[in-house]
Amino acid sequence: MNGLDVERVLGWLEEAAQMLRDSLQEEREISQKTGALDLVTDMDRRIEQFLVRNIREFYPGDRILGEEGTGDRVEDLAGRVWILDPIDGTMNFIKQKENFAVMIAVVEDGIGKCGFIYDVMRSRLVWGGPETGVYYNGQPLPPLQDHELKDSLVAINWQMFADNVSNVKALAWGSCGVRIQSCAGTEFIQLLLGKQSVYVSKLAPWDYAAGRILCETAGIRCSTIKGEPLGWLESIQGAFATPRAYESAIRMLNEQ
Amino acid sequence: MNGLDVERVLGWLEEAAQMLRDSLQEEREISQKTGALDLVTDMDRRIEQFLVRNIREFYPGDRILGEEGTGDRVEDLAGRVWILDPIDGTMNFIKQKENFAVMIAVVEDGIGKCGFIYDVMRSRLVWGGPETGVYYNGQPLPPLQDHELKDSLVAINWQMFADNVSNVKALAWGSCGVRIQSCAGTEFIQLLLGKQSVYVSKLAPWDYAAGRILCETAGIRCSTIKGEPLGWLESIQGAFATPRAYESAIRMLNEQ
Repeated sequence: MNGLDVERVLGWLEEAAQMLRDSLQEEREISQKTGALDLVTDMDRRIEQFLVRNIREFYPGDRILGEEGTGDRVEDLAGRVWILDPIDGTMNFIKQKENFAVMIAVVEDGIGKCGFIYDVMRSRLVWGGPETGVYYNGQPLPPLQDHELKDSLVAINWQMFADNVSNVKALAWGSCGVRIQSCAGTEFIQLLLGKQSVYVSKLAPWDYAAGRILCETAGIRCSTIKGEPLGWLESIQGAFATPRAYESAIRMLNEQ
Repeated sequence: MNGLDVERVLGWLEEAAQMLRDSLQEEREISQKTGALDLVTDMDRRIEQFLVRNIREFYPGDRILGEEGTGDRVEDLAGRVWILDPIDGTMNFIKQKENFAVMIAVVEDGIGKCGFIYDVMRSRLVWGGPETGVYYNGQPLPPLQDHELKDSLVAINWQMFADNVSNVKALAWGSCGVRIQSCAGTEFIQLLLGKQSVYVSKLAPWDYAAGRILCETAGIRCSTIKGEPLGWLESIQGAFATPRAYESAIRMLNEQ
């Protein structure tokens, strides 16, 4: 991958995960970003700074798009861009001390090269891309089963479910049940491990970049809920699903 | 507790948990009970038979109410009654191979004496009652924090959420977010560990008996969603919450 040292990135992730585990013993500084449901802690900033510092040292020519704004202002996809979510699921990190993830995506000239998702408290680390395949805790990811929607568990963003955005309630009733962790990283891992077959949510670039690379590599379809292709720099309402469930899901999400 | 040997019951639970872990390597026989969303496997029946056989041997005078019907027909609460859920979260057991629990409740003359919930794949075991207090993995449960609803994560049965039963959407929007595991046992553990503060669901006796005993012992309020006291033998729409969040939740669930 044009000089990307995966082992080095995995080392950063292990270090970040340990910082996060240690931090659960301490009181946190918590502040609001856009509102009461959108929180940030000092650890979100510390982990992003740690990752940015390492990327700058080892990949000085690259650009960085980070959730907490420590990186660069990235408005195009020329060259290599790192997309970082230092703590995905900050509300869970604060309230549950679990069900959160660290995510890193590497995109070169608009092509997804490698994604990393670390579910810290379950010690589940998934990484990979089109040149390597996907690895789960050091082993190749088992092949995915292509279930029908009616035989699938689905994850739906709880706010979209409450407002029945794009008819997601029909999707729920057409499945064998809804599960909600409210952490994109752990929901993507559920998809990749075959524990759920559909994920529908509103997501910022750092929420879906790594998951998209991993899903596309594993044969999981990725688009907006309208079925349109994804970019890398836009906030989206996204649909991610194994092929058969995806066909049913997109049809239901777009019925008038 | 009038001759109840807690260590013996904990031993049965460990044995049942190991049978369940081992069973995840094998193909399962799956059949429908009331419909496509209500499944049962050969392991539900095997675990219930294992528990019933042991209870019959050591407590021959007691009666048993089991989800799979292996026990007795229990229509009153005289004497000691065991209420069993061999696999709570059977759909998760089948689809996710995690997020399921074994639950046992012991009720004497209508008084909840001891509840046991074992989240098998997370190895989280909670047990206790009014005479002993509540223990989590061998240690006394830490005191619960009494958050306001607006500072609490809430769990809501996904079907009730989809249909907005009793205005649960208002409850969701009044909280800091909805999480759904669709397993009463693991949701009760989330409450007891302070990771979520409210749980609203429709439940059969084996779904809530153990959780109710544990919650009441730990200071979590338990009632129907109308605020009425719970029995032991009825199917309910239940609300379980720490005191402050409970007050707000019951008000919202009953606003016209």
